[in-house]
Amino acid sequence: MNELALVERIRKMADPSGHSGSSRGVKLGIGHDCAIFQPPPGFDLLLKTDQLIERVHFKPRTPAPAVGQRALARPLSDIAAMGGEPRACLVSLALPKSKSGEWAVDFFKGLLRLARRTKTTLAGGDLSTDDHVHCAVMLVGVVARGQALRRDGARPGDALYVSGRLGKPWDQPIRPRLELGQTLAGRATACMDISDGLALDLYRLCVASKVAAEVDRVPVFPGATLDRALHGGDDYELLFTQPAHQPVARGVTRIGTIVAGQPGQVTFQGRKLAKRGWTSF
Amino acid sequence: MNELALVERIRKMADPSGHSGSSRGVKLGIGHDCAIFQPPPGFDLLLKTDQLIERVHFKPRTPAPAVGQRALARPLSDIAAMGGEPRACLVSLALPKSKSGEWAVDFFKGLLRLARRTKTTLAGGDLSTDDHVHCAVMLVGVVARGQALRRDGARPGDALYVSGRLGKPWDQPIRPRLELGQTLAGRATACMDISDGLALDLYRLCVASKVAAEVDRVPVFPGATLDRALHGGDDYELLFTQPAHQPVARGVTRIGTIVAGQPGQVTFQGRKLAKRGWTSF
Repeated sequence: MNELALVERIRKMADPSGHSGSSRGVKLGIGHDCAIFQPPPGFDLLLKTDQLIERVHFKPRTPAPAVGQRALARPLSDIAAMGGEPRACLVSLALPKSKSGEWAVDFFKGLLRLARRTKTTLAGGDLSTDDHVHCAVMLVGVVARGQALRRDGARPGDALYVSGRLGKPWDQPIRPRLELGQTLAGRATACMDISDGLALDLYRLCVASKVAAEVDRVPVFPGATLDRALHGGDDYELLFTQPAHQPVARGVTRIGTIVAGQPGQVTFQGRKLAKRGWTSF
Repeated sequence: MNELALVERIRKMADPSGHSGSSRGVKLGIGHDCAIFQPPPGFDLLLKTDQLIERVHFKPRTPAPAVGQRALARPLSDIAAMGGEPRACLVSLALPKSKSGEWAVDFFKGLLRLARRTKTTLAGGDLSTDDHVHCAVMLVGVVARGQALRRDGARPGDALYVSGRLGKPWDQPIRPRLELGQTLAGRATACMDISDGLALDLYRLCVASKVAAEVDRVPVFPGATLDRALHGGDDYELLFTQPAHQPVARGVTRIGTIVAGQPGQVTFQGRKLAKRGWTSF
């Protein structure tokens, strides 16, 4: 398919009614120099971009719909981590000419299925060639003004929680914890998503909050090793803190406690935990 | 440089004062799950993403600051085309480990020089490895509500203009026409930037506006051929229409007239102009 035909096909898939970009604040969508978004009054915007690259983040034979799903799910997880609601996304996609037909259509099918489920409007993007697939999704979310969850508010004495179980296989579909994040907004003292492994991400939360942490236990995904649960990355669960007396949402596990100490120091069952996890370089 | 060190270096370059993200509506910047942007009341937001890929959009030996400049300049040109002011950008960058040190720093030097000149805050991004350089810039601009320039408002009888001269060499720095675009907001009937060549982009403007166009003359960049000026792409000048009697900004050239006719039909000096230009596939 040539570029113009592919754009037209994507536009129809994204907006079968033909009322281009009338929803979720998007006043003008695919096929213009920019998308136009009317921000709702009284809200802050959350901005995020995340890459998904063949041979770095997924195997060449991964089905196209799963690649599209993952490309959107990763930045959605960051919107969840700050307590926001997604509104609009723009998709930059580079791919070989051999994938510019059905593969590209299937990629967008997977992406749009998750977009519809999370009420995220596909508002534009950019297509290009490359010798392998490279995707970068730009995501815009909203959160009540001043209510965004951040990673720098944990205080000594706070209880430390994670959602779900850690150490999932890399090819599992990601389920961004949007509902949980929205529940936590204005309640949790700190929150972030676990994308690079519990050990490394908890280190970052503690550095940002200038605190230390003691971890007692970790909910391990069935079949995963403890090492993978601590250092593996790609979990996309939420890691958060709140005052210990406060009730917690269902499906979360208390894994430890925030303590005063050297910022970023984390212990697991009494021993220092290395800040090892997924890094790019 | 490892990823954490590079992020810290970029953060310091973007915000030497250390008051992370306090400017241009950006309340929280680099180093968090998302950036937080407080939209100004009474404005629409313009959202844009554009890719810049080694061997597709630039040669491997292009100096890193020029690559960074171009990565930001291309989406800035789209903000200009809709009459907006840029506010914040997020940069997705994938690059080989060998370029994760000085090359990456120089890339961001070039990008940040243009960001400062255009008052665009670098608010975040995503770093990854790949076997060649791949960049996608996410850009957020603002425009007074309802005042964004679009490509679908040209009417028969409108005069047709371009800024600058067309057919520039590909390695020229891009100067996004932000001031001109802001002058045109609320005055031009249609506007877009010329990124894929005058012929192809004018075809698109005419299709969107359901009109035809007659082009009499084209301002050709010194040394360029007429074919390159018509079909070459990478000009990043503005193409716009306004009522013929209305005064025009300095430095623009009237190139023809919008007429009633088959939507998208463009003639040049009386002969049909092929909609040939830059396309990805």
